[in-house]
Amino acid sequence: MSHSATGHSATGEQTTTAELTAAVEAAHEAFLKGRSATPAARAGWLESVASALEADAAALVGVASQETHLAEQRLTGELRRSVFQLRLFAAEIRSGEHLDATIDHADPEWGMGPRPDIRRMNVPLGVVGVFGASNFPFAFSVAGGDTASALAAGCAVVHKGHEAHPELAVLTAAAVVRGLEAAGAPSGLFALVMGREAGVQLVGHPLVRAIGFTGSTAGGRALMDLAAKRPEPIPFYGELGGINAVVVTPDAWQERREQVLREYVGSFTLGMGQFCTKPGLLFVPAGEDAELEEPLRAALPEVARHALLTDRLAGGYERAVEEMSSRPGVRVLIPGSFDEAPRPTVLVAEASAALADAELLRREMFGPASLVVRYSDDVELLRVVGLLEGQLTTAIQGTPDDLAEDTADGPTAKLAEKLAERSGRVLWNQWPTGVTVSYAQHHGGPYPATSSNTTSVGTAAIRRFLRPVAYQGWPEEGLPEPLRDANPWQVPQRVDGVWHRSRVEQGADR
Amino acid sequence: MSHSATGHSATGEQTTTAELTAAVEAAHEAFLKGRSATPAARAGWLESVASALEADAAALVGVASQETHLAEQRLTGELRRSVFQLRLFAAEIRSGEHLDATIDHADPEWGMGPRPDIRRMNVPLGVVGVFGASNFPFAFSVAGGDTASALAAGCAVVHKGHEAHPELAVLTAAAVVRGLEAAGAPSGLFALVMGREAGVQLVGHPLVRAIGFTGSTAGGRALMDLAAKRPEPIPFYGELGGINAVVVTPDAWQERREQVLREYVGSFTLGMGQFCTKPGLLFVPAGEDAELEEPLRAALPEVARHALLTDRLAGGYERAVEEMSSRPGVRVLIPGSFDEAPRPTVLVAEASAALADAELLRREMFGPASLVVRYSDDVELLRVVGLLEGQLTTAIQGTPDDLAEDTADGPTAKLAEKLAERSGRVLWNQWPTGVTVSYAQHHGGPYPATSSNTTSVGTAAIRRFLRPVAYQGWPEEGLPEPLRDANPWQVPQRVDGVWHRSRVEQGADR
Repeated sequence: MSHSATGHSATGEQTTTAELTAAVEAAHEAFLKGRSATPAARAGWLESVASALEADAAALVGVASQETHLAEQRLTGELRRSVFQLRLFAAEIRSGEHLDATIDHADPEWGMGPRPDIRRMNVPLGVVGVFGASNFPFAFSVAGGDTASALAAGCAVVHKGHEAHPELAVLTAAAVVRGLEAAGAPSGLFALVMGREAGVQLVGHPLVRAIGFTGSTAGGRALMDLAAKRPEPIPFYGELGGINAVVVTPDAWQERREQVLREYVGSFTLGMGQFCTKPGLLFVPAGEDAELEEPLRAALPEVARHALLTDRLAGGYERAVEEMSSRPGVRVLIPGSFDEAPRPTVLVAEASAALADAELLRREMFGPASLVVRYSDDVELLRVVGLLEGQLTTAIQGTPDDLAEDTADGPTAKLAEKLAERSGRVLWNQWPTGVTVSYAQHHGGPYPATSSNTTSVGTAAIRRFLRPVAYQGWPEEGLPEPLRDANPWQVPQRVDGVWHRSRVEQGADR
Repeated sequence: MSHSATGHSATGEQTTTAELTAAVEAAHEAFLKGRSATPAARAGWLESVASALEADAAALVGVASQETHLAEQRLTGELRRSVFQLRLFAAEIRSGEHLDATIDHADPEWGMGPRPDIRRMNVPLGVVGVFGASNFPFAFSVAGGDTASALAAGCAVVHKGHEAHPELAVLTAAAVVRGLEAAGAPSGLFALVMGREAGVQLVGHPLVRAIGFTGSTAGGRALMDLAAKRPEPIPFYGELGGINAVVVTPDAWQERREQVLREYVGSFTLGMGQFCTKPGLLFVPAGEDAELEEPLRAALPEVARHALLTDRLAGGYERAVEEMSSRPGVRVLIPGSFDEAPRPTVLVAEASAALADAELLRREMFGPASLVVRYSDDVELLRVVGLLEGQLTTAIQGTPDDLAEDTADGPTAKLAEKLAERSGRVLWNQWPTGVTVSYAQHHGGPYPATSSNTTSVGTAAIRRFLRPVAYQGWPEEGLPEPLRDANPWQVPQRVDGVWHRSRVEQGADR
């Protein structure tokens, strides 16, 4: 079996052990060649990949549409997002921000005794293994956030394509490789492998220095445990899943119940509910079924329905909804369907049932279903929120009065604090679906939402694939460029405790 | 058995399960009360602990001297270092640098589609379990770097004292608790526990959110595996050990062989070689034994000798030296002793022996022994350096010519690159013992030197005990202070991609 440029032989075929080994070794060689590239050169590689993806957009979206059942508009937007991400990361590394260059000059008066000259910067880890997701064929797959951030960091990437869209994986990988080559990146810096066994071998390969993963908690935990058991354990950055509880305050419920429920339906059914940020729980004040049913029955028929991503996921979704529906205290409020294009399902329970059985708050139903939990008062709400496991996001639907009349010990502040304790992103009067790629984004959360305290979205994701190295006592000519006093790359430097930004940025700053 | 203020009953006694549980729960309560303290208030807590330690300095050093056999001067310096560290970390958190406050205003023109208002900052993890080391009774023990950085982050600390100095642990903990209370920190924010079983339970306790550890690779790996196997895995920040290879270039060897060997002896015997930064390997150009022997025999008698830290460590040291001496190709060049105050031992081997048996480069001898490895040329040197495992530090002893005549592909550049790949700190013409506490310090390295890509020394150590939380769509009055546009705490903020530093610092910057 011969190797293609992507380190993978053909659509749908499983990568052999020999092919996996060759891909990792080639990636390592490419990493060694490429690691000392200037930020500008590396940024050029990312931008060239972005252009290659744009050039192939029509073909990519076409194949993605066939393999995932997702709408073309959604796929076009997702590809645009992935292309934008590459360019944003290129700009970020061009600025040198990610290097965290820190210079302490020798100081004979340093409080604990004379300080030598010591300077620290971030360097790339090496080869990174990336596992793509089923539900985002572009944004969290071959050319998605983990790949973009690992390449931006200066790492090489061996990507394990998801079996839900193998042809797209091969097409995308070809565009990535073409983009890298066109910009002069070392050959082998990116490779695609396919198959479960190749994934396991990737996590265990001694030259692989970190893993980026997006997928289920069960699958992620199994690979995470493998990473932890290696003779040399490596970091496992897993984005594993989410419930994304949304709390509606009594004020908001009174003021705009119908609007809240309409938006809720829009959010939990978006992409047929196959988002890690789908609101799987809605906490509302206690009341009659009718309060919920009427607005939901008005909004639900407007949902655009299509098939779930794979038959396997569709089966798992149906079982999860059945299992949840059968737990004590849970009722089906709006029955859905489990056919070719499932109609959404809404379940309901009282908070007392969740207090008796916390599993109600912890089971993900990956598809267009969600559970409404009714609470009787602030005290019960805080108790039930206290049972939430780690979440990617939580949200409050409130009113200006909820904040204006609140104190540091008030109900809204207490609720926000409890939600921040359990999640990586807390929203106010917004819905969790939709994850912007920006400087401040944090897409992560306490376990089991993710397996680390890092983000897989936004410029901060680059930091995952870097490690610091300090240089002590080196003369200027022996130091890496970012750590030189002359600062030839004009990167931000913290010098003796004080940050100095580059000329360009200081200009923008003032 | 009644609880003392330190959560531990009396010197040398083992903490019971009930006591451990009570200490962790009290620490969690204190964390919840203290987490929203202003940086200035929290900085005051650290400074008060520093003052309490200073007030008790004579008693602390007296007990430490009895329990560790270390010289009073060394212990006084180490205590000063620990006090300085608390004050430096206080200044760091007062600046707000550690919060990494990042603000992205809503932007309808954002390249991937309209961006909501999203703002991110770091928040403390919760209760941190800290394991003290035998060899630094102050700097890496009860009031050492892990405790200081966890408290600075806003976490609570339950510290497992080292059995090598139990009375000192109790005395130091009392000073820490007194200092915290005097400054108004929540009661229970710090507690001491003792005993192996308490340590294991600490790693497994559900309320414990991270572990800081300094100690052996074997002991650290066992606890690391426990942390990884928890239902909710937690980060394990372990500083596990080191070989700290030093390479002498042919130029430097020719120019100042006697000086290099004198300094080598000073470094590998400092503190009786019981440092994680002890140079356990010295690579020198091939030559006769006499070249080494004469300068070593001149320098070795000047070494101040005393007993090793514990009988257990002394036994382990003797076995390690014997084991290393018996490996093929290793000879005892300068025999030492293994009595009450051991005389240092120097072993020698050719690089060819290390190429045949990489264990020569990987076995730590924790005490005053080191191995000299002779290389024949640059090619052999790079090959043998390629067999090094992860190190805390590596060093080059070179000359200005080594750098001046070098190119990016030259021998010195290649060597420096290979060393940086394998270590967290690379020194030029300095020795690895002595680890300054500063902004740029990095005390860490690839496994097995440490278990993560973080540092346990320097202000960057604070970041280990923080996690990011993003707030999306919140009005100003609902946001935490560091994320408000008005910036009431005057912390550094990255706003729409551009850093804005506080007024004070910007003044210093210009």
